[in-house]
Amino acid sequence: MDRIRATYLVETPHDLEKAAAVLAGEQSSGTFVSVPGETDALKKRFAARVDGVEHLETVSQPSMPGDHLKAGEYHRGKVTVSWSVENFEVNVPVLISTLQGNLYELRQFTGLKLDDFTLPNIYKDHFAGPTFGASGTKKLVDVPKERPMIGTIIKPSVGLSPKDTAAIVKELVEAGIDFIKDDELMGSTANSPFQKRVDAIMKVINDHADKTGKKVMYAFNITEDLPTMKANYKKVVKAGGSCAMISINSVGWAAVREMCKFGDLSIHAHRNGWGMMNRHPLLGINFPAYAKLWRMAGVDQLHVNGIRNKFWESDESVVRSIKSCQKPFLNDRGILPVVSSGQWGGQAFDTYKLTQTTDLLYMAGGGIMAHPSGPAGGVRALQQAWEGAVEGISLEDAAKRYKEFGESVEKFGE
Amino acid sequence: MDRIRATYLVETPHDLEKAAAVLAGEQSSGTFVSVPGETDALKKRFAARVDGVEHLETVSQPSMPGDHLKAGEYHRGKVTVSWSVENFEVNVPVLISTLQGNLYELRQFTGLKLDDFTLPNIYKDHFAGPTFGASGTKKLVDVPKERPMIGTIIKPSVGLSPKDTAAIVKELVEAGIDFIKDDELMGSTANSPFQKRVDAIMKVINDHADKTGKKVMYAFNITEDLPTMKANYKKVVKAGGSCAMISINSVGWAAVREMCKFGDLSIHAHRNGWGMMNRHPLLGINFPAYAKLWRMAGVDQLHVNGIRNKFWESDESVVRSIKSCQKPFLNDRGILPVVSSGQWGGQAFDTYKLTQTTDLLYMAGGGIMAHPSGPAGGVRALQQAWEGAVEGISLEDAAKRYKEFGESVEKFGE
Repeated sequence: MDRIRATYLVETPHDLEKAAAVLAGEQSSGTFVSVPGETDALKKRFAARVDGVEHLETVSQPSMPGDHLKAGEYHRGKVTVSWSVENFEVNVPVLISTLQGNLYELRQFTGLKLDDFTLPNIYKDHFAGPTFGASGTKKLVDVPKERPMIGTIIKPSVGLSPKDTAAIVKELVEAGIDFIKDDELMGSTANSPFQKRVDAIMKVINDHADKTGKKVMYAFNITEDLPTMKANYKKVVKAGGSCAMISINSVGWAAVREMCKFGDLSIHAHRNGWGMMNRHPLLGINFPAYAKLWRMAGVDQLHVNGIRNKFWESDESVVRSIKSCQKPFLNDRGILPVVSSGQWGGQAFDTYKLTQTTDLLYMAGGGIMAHPSGPAGGVRALQQAWEGAVEGISLEDAAKRYKEFGESVEKFGE
Repeated sequence: MDRIRATYLVETPHDLEKAAAVLAGEQSSGTFVSVPGETDALKKRFAARVDGVEHLETVSQPSMPGDHLKAGEYHRGKVTVSWSVENFEVNVPVLISTLQGNLYELRQFTGLKLDDFTLPNIYKDHFAGPTFGASGTKKLVDVPKERPMIGTIIKPSVGLSPKDTAAIVKELVEAGIDFIKDDELMGSTANSPFQKRVDAIMKVINDHADKTGKKVMYAFNITEDLPTMKANYKKVVKAGGSCAMISINSVGWAAVREMCKFGDLSIHAHRNGWGMMNRHPLLGINFPAYAKLWRMAGVDQLHVNGIRNKFWESDESVVRSIKSCQKPFLNDRGILPVVSSGQWGGQAFDTYKLTQTTDLLYMAGGGIMAHPSGPAGGVRALQQAWEGAVEGISLEDAAKRYKEFGESVEKFGE
């Protein structure tokens, strides 16, 4: 029978093999004593199985409170566990409960992080993949294969009126930008009701498209309860928009899945709240597992942070995230990694060197708006940086070759 | 203007006041440099405000990685921040993104946990509270005010056929139990399709109700994608059931809210996955804040773990959780705390002493099924334990006074 297989990073005061068995027991029979009805045949068919235990270092301090043994020795390792697909069929929320669930509360572990999982082929029959994905989303804005989409975010995040926002949008679309987004804190506010914002912004974008043939993508933040989210989605479609943003962790898997199924808009998945599940090295979930869950929901674009970002995350982790968005999964040929946080053209060189891809949405804030030659110069500088990066020249050579990029190195370079 | 106010436990290598200002800045203007359009009037109206900073201890090791200062000194404290309700109106997902969001990723913090929040009265106009809540749920099973609902969970969690499950249910309802639940890992399996399980179990429960007048509550695990969850819900209603269980973290806020709005069934909220957000003392969210978010979704029952549980959580934390379910919030007079994990009658005494309430669903597994006089003895023992606890006698005196409880002390007592 086909099996679902998950890998965890763990830390335990117990023997690693014994702790792995507890993990498997908790996530199938759910009890550590034999009860009536739990026959060997049932166990063989439905019990989770430990498929591998790899020993890593032993440390003297627990990563997490709750060790009742007070052992003083904590063994770290990588544990692989599998379940028959018969346990939950293709029910993703129950899959989530099985892969994570009560595991984080077991005192047999002082650290537990879901790293990745694989699914049997039967899931392909039920999850068609995103409507647009990476290539489809780039196509919506006519961005060539050779460079990433260049995007920015409206600041200040909260407070601007639709008219003020539309004025900034006008400046940006005239500067040649591909993508603009609402902030995740910006829903419908007293000062910027959703419908009015959509109308004001789409008028600018549609006018620009009529003139130039280029329809800039704007990610309207439709995040709300489900009925309002649906209404917001329809407003964007009706106004001629091509994208909606959802704060996926705040809304949750089942409602995001509903929104993705409509298929009219590219869904920009904002992962705010992610740090809660990921910042601790031995608690929560790593990006490869996280991205797969949301790819099953059907999102087209997913935030991955950026090289030398303003947050805490390491470059190595960001690169792993970008690669995991691009790896085919079930029927999904790849979603668009959204690179953002403290980005300007300067990081294009390392981003390309480390990932070898231009299937990205590359977001810069100050790098565009605060460029010495104005936003148009900022957008040009980003395009130049990527041209240079893909060609394989150095940042220094690109700064010499391109006027606007040279200006931004002078202003934003270290 | 009415304000939303949140309290955080934080740890920072920076001056605590400065870090609090960064928190407020990130969660309103979203940028640390002045940008065109960010006027003083806008700031005054929409910027988050630091309302209080309380200094706690300073430590020499950071709780979380990501400190770029390598300061060697980490200041802990309690920070209170507020926002105008104008920023998000009554949009709960955007409220979640604002209260949590990118905060966990700021390198200015080496620890950050949302402890609690308060909402202005305008929320009362939009959130009616749960359909049943604590008192309504107990009423559905005719459980008197003087004792908690007594419940149990079907084990093994996964694998039993509907027929096997119904046989266990029959034994339990005849034993006088109030409540039984599916496991959170049990959805619709190859061996126990959802509809067949509902039919087999509800036949037992309905027959018993016809004979005795007591309709035992069974929490069917309807957790799935939204269309299937709705279909599952309808199946339970049609079969005469009174309750549905949802793994709320796996499904997410917006879809749980939709399910709660139907109002035919008491919603049993299983919090599996909770450890990921809570186990670290300085990362994630504490129960008072968490419970409020789900009470706005409309759940009737919410898991809180139990005194001397088999998981890692402290009794103090469990007591705080029980109390927070019972504290009125908006229009909600109190939801039913689900006490479970390693419980038998022995913990009734401390549970009552520490919480002074019988508005609980008190769940025991082995304490019922493995009782020396069988499940009927197990249920009697639990009722006796609570009678003794509420009367104020000691566990030892109760063991002498009540036959079945005495037997369980002999078997399960330490």
